[in-house]
This record gives sequence, structure tokens and C-alpha cells, in this order.
Amino acid sequence: MELRYPNGKKYILDKKDKNTRKTSNSISYSNRGMTLEEDLNITNQYYLQNDLAVIHKKPTPVQIVHVDYKSRSTAVIKEAYFKQPSTTDYNGVYKGKYIDFEAKETNNTTSFPLQNFHEHQIDHMKKVVQQNGISFVILRFAKTEEIFLLESQYLFNFWNRMTSGGRKSIKKEEIKQFGYLLPIGLHPRIDYLQIIKKIIKNG
Amino acid sequence: MELRYPNGKKYILDKKDKNTRKTSNSISYSNRGMTLEEDLNITNQYYLQNDLAVIHKKPTPVQIVHVDYKSRSTAVIKEAYFKQPSTTDYNGVYKGKYIDFEAKETNNTTSFPLQNFHEHQIDHMKKVVQQNGISFVILRFAKTEEIFLLESQYLFNFWNRMTSGGRKSIKKEEIKQFGYLLPIGLHPRIDYLQIIKKIIKNG
Repeated sequence: MELRYPNGKKYILDKKDKNTRKTSNSISYSNRGMTLEEDLNITNQYYLQNDLAVIHKKPTPVQIVHVDYKSRSTAVIKEAYFKQPSTTDYNGVYKGKYIDFEAKETNNTTSFPLQNFHEHQIDHMKKVVQQNGISFVILRFAKTEEIFLLESQYLFNFWNRMTSGGRKSIKKEEIKQFGYLLPIGLHPRIDYLQIIKKIIKNG
Repeated sequence: MELRYPNGKKYILDKKDKNTRKTSNSISYSNRGMTLEEDLNITNQYYLQNDLAVIHKKPTPVQIVHVDYKSRSTAVIKEAYFKQPSTTDYNGVYKGKYIDFEAKETNNTTSFPLQNFHEHQIDHMKKVVQQNGISFVILRFAKTEEIFLLESQYLFNFWNRMTSGGRKSIKKEEIKQFGYLLPIGLHPRIDYLQIIKKIIKNG
């Protein structure tokens, strides 16, 4: 990772209000300054290196407008814009099965704001579920260091509640009820594969 | 994906292009004719809209160096560079199964240059195969309008032949022998899902 401006981060920070953003300066995470994204990348690396799963974060979608071709090998992008992603950020394969998820965090303590998701991301998740893929979100409560995995079908319910005029967030209690608390460790950092195994077993 | 030109015609224009161009990360925003990438995007759209499969091209990986934050909503990327992709360009789900492929084209007529692929892409494909994903490449011979699907395990053989000092390309005859000729149509444009079904059935 050599990005000086870590990808989604800045963009999302721009678009969201202060209590729902991907990073936080005041929070001591397992490593200082580590974001959920970084922890997931390290987790995915661990899965990859140990042949447990092949899951990658997609590159940040960028609309390229102007490129300087000084030479064949050194094209410099001089003007580009962040695009809204049309899918989720993470996908890959575990034992032949398609895995697809989005990861978000909040500084709220009692609920998770649904504005963290875009409607076309929800649409994408629905398509994935319809196609029998394993679809979920990873939700982190930054202040309490709690990370949950919530299968998409539950997210859809909360999303529907919002679009029919209900609350704009999921209560933490609801996440606890329908989701799984993820174990946090060192190797792997966020072991969501354990829950995927459970989901496959139960499904 | 917006189309300025109707379908088949632009293929013919493509023939003027240079030897082996890389469709996937090439600068298709310049909008010079239909590329294999565009045809695949339209095909994937068709699959998506008809609930046949959920397959997307990943965004081009870009290393962002400098961003201008003029205002909250308008971040302009002022300096960025193309990064070599560490995975293949396309992936998604068909009936729960993980699908993963790379698409390339050549203006050669009798063989397909292996330089179209990077070693880490081959490594990625090996990881996907190991994880029981469905992994292949789509190879287009631009001059003759022939598009083939070749499962990765065959590509690995040709890759190994090259790295042990053998030829640096796959003969078209070999692609015909081990791969599948893809039907070209309008809806969908390149119906590779038909072959995936066969592969699943035979596998």
C-alpha cells in the first residue's frame, strides 16, 4: 500500500458528517491509526498467504479526464475525479463460493447510520443474494472496538424500514440480535472467515 | 457505459490498432471505437439486467498522489499514476459460484502473445483455481474477430512452457484445441456464460 491519500477514506470523509466516517484520530485501535480498511486488507493478505480464501478490495473507482503521456512508460494522470462505487468494495472466493461485502465504521455508540450505504450498493447486494452469493456488511463501532458481520438480508430489512419512513439507522441491539460479533486478533486481524463458514454450514 | 457507436462496425476500425493492445486498463475513455472491454461490459450489463449473473469489471487501479480539495464535494485528483493490477479485471458470481477472468486482444493472426499477462495475474489465477473458483481468460484475435475462452489451467501450461524457455505465445491452433470459440451476437454480445455453464457441468 503506497497510497499517500488512502483511497476511499478521504472521499468518504468528504461526503459524510463527522460522526460517521472511516477514520478517527481519537481512537486507539489495535494499531494506532489503523482503519477498518487496513485491518481488512491485512486479514485478506493473511487469508491469501495461507490459502484460506482469495478476497481483495477493489480499487477506488476514478473517472480519468486528462492524462499526460510524457513517455510510453510514464503516463501521469493530471485530472481525475472520484466516482461513486457501483458495487461493494470487497469480493472474492472461498471454496468456490462467491463472497461479497462492504465495510463501514461509525463513531456513534448506540446505532449505525444507514447513510453509510448508497442505494446502488444495496441494489448490488440484492443482485448478489439473488445469484446465491454470500453477501454481508462488516460494521465497526469505533469507540467500543466492536466489529459485527451482518448478512445482507437483514440490512435490506433495515433499509426498507428507512425507505418506508422509519429510522435512518440500525440500533446496535438489532445488529447484535441479527449479526455476529467478529473476533479481533493478530493473525488474522478480523477473522470474518469463521463466520462465513458458519453461514455456509447453516445455509 | 455510454455508447457512441453501434456494435459490430467498430471492431473493424479496431483492426488498425497496433499489435497487441491491452484492453482492460487501456485508456478507453478516449472513446476510439469499441473494444473487447466495452463489449464485455455490455455483455455483463445484459447478464445483470436479466438476472443471469453478477459480473463487473474492477476499476483501473490508480495510485493517487495529490488531490485538490477545492470544496467538500469537488475533490480533484491532480496527480496520479496507473498501477499494475494485482488481480484479473473481471469477477463476480453465477449461481453462487465465483467467476474470475481477464480479457485481452491481439492483432496477431496466428498466435497470442503471453506478454499480455503479468506474472502476478497468473499467480492470482492460480490462487483462484486453488480456491475452486472458475478462472479463465478471454482472448480476442482482432483481425479475424474470433474470441476464445481458455480455462486458466491451460494458460498455466503455456506460461510454464515460456518460463522454461519455450515460445512466448500460444499458437492459435492450441487455443482452438484447448479453448472454446465464443459466440458473438447482439444480446448478449459475447455469450461466455454459455461456456461457463458447460465448464460447471463438466467439472
